[in-house]
Amino acid sequence: MSDASVLETFPTPQRTEYMIEHVAEEFTSLCPKTGQPDFGRIILRYCPDELCVELKSLKLYYQSYRDDGIFYEAVTNQIRDDLRKLLSPRWLQVITQWRVRGGIHSRIIAEHGDVPQRWTPE
Amino acid sequence: MSDASVLETFPTPQRTEYMIEHVAEEFTSLCPKTGQPDFGRIILRYCPDELCVELKSLKLYYQSYRDDGIFYEAVTNQIRDDLRKLLSPRWLQVITQWRVRGGIHSRIIAEHGDVPQRWTPE
Amino acid sequence: MSDASVLETFPTPQRTEYMIEHVAEEFTSLCPKTGQPDFGRIILRYCPDELCVELKSLKLYYQSYRDDGIFYEAVTNQIRDDLRKLLSPRWLQVITQWRVRGGIHSRIIAEHGDVPQRWTPE
Amino acid sequence: MSDASVLETFPTPQRTEYMIEHVAEEFTSLCPKTGQPDFGRIILRYCPDELCVELKSLKLYYQSYRDDGIFYEAVTNQIRDDLRKLLSPRWLQVITQWRVRGGIHSRIIAEHGDVPQRWTPE
Amino acid sequence: MSDASVLETFPTPQRTEYMIEHVAEEFTSLCPKTGQPDFGRIILRYCPDELCVELKSLKLYYQSYRDDGIFYEAVTNQIRDDLRKLLSPRWLQVITQWRVRGGIHSRIIAEHGDVPQRWTPE
Amino acid sequence: MSDASVLETFPTPQRTEYMIEHVAEEFTSLCPKTGQPDFGRIILRYCPDELCVELKSLKLYYQSYRDDGIFYEAVTNQIRDDLRKLLSPRWLQVITQWRVRGGIHSRIIAEHGDVPQRWTPE
Amino acid sequence: MSDASVLETFPTPQRTEYMIEHVAEEFTSLCPKTGQPDFGRIILRYCPDELCVELKSLKLYYQSYRDDGIFYEAVTNQIRDDLRKLLSPRWLQVITQWRVRGGIHSRIIAEHGDVPQRWTPE
Amino acid sequence: MSDASVLETFPTPQRTEYMIEHVAEEFTSLCPKTGQPDFGRIILRYCPDELCVELKSLKLYYQSYRDDGIFYEAVTNQIRDDLRKLLSPRWLQVITQWRVRGGIHSRIIAEHGDVPQRWTPE
Amino acid sequence: MSDASVLETFPTPQRTEYMIEHVAEEFTSLCPKTGQPDFGRIILRYCPDELCVELKSLKLYYQSYRDDGIFYEAVTNQIRDDLRKLLSPRWLQVITQWRVRGGIHSRIIAEHGDVPQRWTPE
Amino acid sequence: MSDASVLETFPTPQRTEYMIEHVAEEFTSLCPKTGQPDFGRIILRYCPDELCVELKSLKLYYQSYRDDGIFYEAVTNQIRDDLRKLLSPRWLQVITQWRVRGGIHSRIIAEHGDVPQRWTPE
Repeated sequence: MSDASVLETFPTPQRTEYMIEHVAEEFTSLCPKTGQPDFGRIILRYCPDELCVELKSLKLYYQSYRDDGIFYEAVTNQIRDDLRKLLSPRWLQVITQWRVRGGIHSRIIAEHGDVPQRWTPE
Repeated sequence: MSDASVLETFPTPQRTEYMIEHVAEEFTSLCPKTGQPDFGRIILRYCPDELCVELKSLKLYYQSYRDDGIFYEAVTNQIRDDLRKLLSPRWLQVITQWRVRGGIHSRIIAEHGDVPQRWTPE
Repeated sequence: MSDASVLETFPTPQRTEYMIEHVAEEFTSLCPKTGQPDFGRIILRYCPDELCVELKSLKLYYQSYRDDGIFYEAVTNQIRDDLRKLLSPRWLQVITQWRVRGGIHSRIIAEHGDVPQRWTPE
Repeated sequence: MSDASVLETFPTPQRTEYMIEHVAEEFTSLCPKTGQPDFGRIILRYCPDELCVELKSLKLYYQSYRDDGIFYEAVTNQIRDDLRKLLSPRWLQVITQWRVRGGIHSRIIAEHGDVPQRWTPE
Repeated sequence: MSDASVLETFPTPQRTEYMIEHVAEEFTSLCPKTGQPDFGRIILRYCPDELCVELKSLKLYYQSYRDDGIFYEAVTNQIRDDLRKLLSPRWLQVITQWRVRGGIHSRIIAEHGDVPQRWTPE
Repeated sequence: MSDASVLETFPTPQRTEYMIEHVAEEFTSLCPKTGQPDFGRIILRYCPDELCVELKSLKLYYQSYRDDGIFYEAVTNQIRDDLRKLLSPRWLQVITQWRVRGGIHSRIIAEHGDVPQRWTPE
Repeated sequence: MSDASVLETFPTPQRTEYMIEHVAEEFTSLCPKTGQPDFGRIILRYCPDELCVELKSLKLYYQSYRDDGIFYEAVTNQIRDDLRKLLSPRWLQVITQWRVRGGIHSRIIAEHGDVPQRWTPE
Repeated sequence: MSDASVLETFPTPQRTEYMIEHVAEEFTSLCPKTGQPDFGRIILRYCPDELCVELKSLKLYYQSYRDDGIFYEAVTNQIRDDLRKLLSPRWLQVITQWRVRGGIHSRIIAEHGDVPQRWTPE
Repeated sequence: MSDASVLETFPTPQRTEYMIEHVAEEFTSLCPKTGQPDFGRIILRYCPDELCVELKSLKLYYQSYRDDGIFYEAVTNQIRDDLRKLLSPRWLQVITQWRVRGGIHSRIIAEHGDVPQRWTPE
Repeated sequence: MSDASVLETFPTPQRTEYMIEHVAEEFTSLCPKTGQPDFGRIILRYCPDELCVELKSLKLYYQSYRDDGIFYEAVTNQIRDDLRKLLSPRWLQVITQWRVRGGIHSRIIAEHGDVPQRWTPE
């Protein structure tokens, strides 16, 4: 089962608003219907308030989905919720991109908080 | 004939606003004038309210156009209408992209509801 | 001479606002100064009101410029004007892109009406 | 059923050895197991001896596979055989490239005769 | 443990020499040292003699490595050996491509038999 | 020395607001510190009021910088100023992009007037 | 009608074997069946013996096909023959690449003489 | 240790608002946890008020991080702060992009001041 | 100083001829003339005889060049020699690719033994 | 005038056969007919015998063509000859690639000595 307890934080080095993006190219979970593996890419973007997520613990958290049977929509919302609870960020966005199944590839976007006025993501 | 009755839904795992995108790379229908095959790509984006479209049923729905003689503009609006009725989403966008005919390639965009303030599509 | 009389229309299948894009990769006219051929690409985008332009007639209309001696700026504005008269669209945009001449490649954009609030072109 | 009788030829304009390549981007047939559509791309290369294949008839020949239930390997060999019989070429190569199924995309290459010494395909 | 017993074959539709390529984009196994997941891409190319490998069984065979702790070099040689035994092909090539570890990405190539004179892979 | 006197104009064919872009791929000047050649790309975008710049004269104007020792920032502002004086445009933008020096590549953007509401540059 | 008399030559600056390539991106002729324009790209490669083709005259020669109704195969062989007669080169290759017609794009290769041992074209 | 004292400035050639971008492709520092090298790319964008940063001194400043053990987030904020103090710009943005570690690549964005109304970065 | 003593080996899992490629994207050393950092990419390809190089030790070996003042040509030959001594391979190739200096980017290729007949590198 | 006297050499660090490639992205000379600037890219590849060309001196040598009126073919052969005299290499190849003129872009290849058996250039 996916395991948010492996996630670790460290205090942000600066309280001024800034943005952090981590792109994980190697995500895999299982389809809850067929048991077949799904493969995806997870983009995490956030504006820290007091805490940042430690990078190695984020990798282990994503790996904890390896044997989970879970739908695209549920993975995306669960990662958003786990990280929102961990970090209490000013803003947080989770984008999951999934490889082709039946000729269709999918992308799910979930957010917490408003996109900062300061920048439009490129 | 295209057949919306094959479409199936499941309840969204979360009521918070989020976005779902399915890109179907393998769409084909027939030109109503010449009977020749047309080939395209269908991008579906929506913010679910209560329901999500089940992915395999979406594939079968797109396949039901295989022997339909239908114009680009009509396909696009019909998919928009069928999915709006099925899902009653907060927002829905259908983009069809078509391969070259007579040196011209085309793209049609239809929507239902307003683009959510929260994100600009990348 | 370029000939708008070849253009044909058909009624839009739906009165809801939507967008149509036709990209013609194979445009050629003549430079009015030197008589040398120019080569370009024409992007047409519009929101139909009552009428859509028929695709094959659009191809023939573009071909009618083949022996015209005409500047980039004039071609772009003339296509905009001819299609505006034909379609009375809610919004219309014509973009011409031209191959390198003297180490410089050019692009001209002309419009009619305001960009619909509904989408930002990607 | 696929139909080689639609194929037409014309005499080569020149008996010197040269090479012709036609790349069809829009091929579809059916999976004989599941009945689901397959989508591919067909590359045909040949050195004519006396005859060339007429381009529009080639398009119609490929379209005749639209409702055929046939495996990748069989399609490739059948196209090779049909065109070899039609053209009696000095050399002929058929490459089929297929879209992703189960995370795997495939390519099949069949030939008739020896690659001409004269060039290595780029 | 990886399991070659899931592999199935079917008789080649034609005895003439031809080439088959299957590219699996979604391969994962475990590093035998660290237990961390590895992610890769497997390219299989072969000239069948009497037998072809069935595509869905190939997918299941690759999935059987999901919980294996095994080095890059060993995976590559084992796939080559398993398929050589299964198919007794005229020629067979296995290429594994691995995602970045420590700033280094790797590729292993193993073969059985001589590259057919007939074509150079593109 | 750079020479704005070579620039020529012609009257815009239409007074409606539209946009013109000229991209010069072959710009070179000299570094004022070292005398070494700099190489860049100049993007000019403007909305004409009464006048357009003639394309061949623009090429000659850019060539007049070939032996000038001048900094990136100064080139960009000087082109902006010379063209603003020449054209009195509604809006004008000059972007210079420079090849790598010391592992760093640079881009300078200067403008005159406000970006037209009508479009966002793509 | 296409006109080889516009072609001009100059003596090669050096008798040592070397290779010259000219890629014309802007070729257009007419389809002899339908009268519709065709658009292509012409790659000319040769090893001069005594003569080189003058670049501007080559451009004019290609432009002389603008109103010719002529098949792909015939254009390619005619250019090969006209340039062979003009230059008596050690080796000459003409490649024509054509834009999509009916979902198919084509490429024709004609040669004179043997590819020099010295290099394989990249 | 990183050393802001190597940074040099020169007066802006023009007081009108404009934008400067310097992209450094070759940045390296050390991971403070493991001592292993990190590799990145630094994008600096700013609107000068009175001063511009001299390009060669910027290169030396970035090189002064070569033996620093410092986290991604801290590097980004420190460069932002050092350059803000040096230049007192109207607006300044620092983007750091980092190569893959543990299958994850990262990007950090820090700013000072508001994005100028005048342009949206492309 | 660069340090070959950190390199470790393991026995090849199979004595049949096969090929291994490791591409290191993050190499840096110093220019012996100016002391400025150089940045490159190292491609190592070899056919093992009895031994393979352990991947993590290869990373540490490359890192040992970080403070070395050494020319492109010398780095390339030294890596070739160190690995040849370590592995006694059937064939070994080292390619170094270097980022732009003075508008010029460079590539050096050194080998030991003959390219195996069996494959041409793609 | 172009000036081979600026070229400098250093002894090769190793007498074993290896290959060196320098790609100069920023070459400019003048057209001898029109006086207009030409822009190109110079690829130099060679196998040193006793001497290597010093990189900075190569840059200065290329810069010495800046005010030369000289044809593509002549530049290419002259660089080949100057470097052959300087280096007496086992093999040397000069490729010049030129930007579009009149819709045509060109490439010239000159060599000295035979391509080493050892590798085929990728």
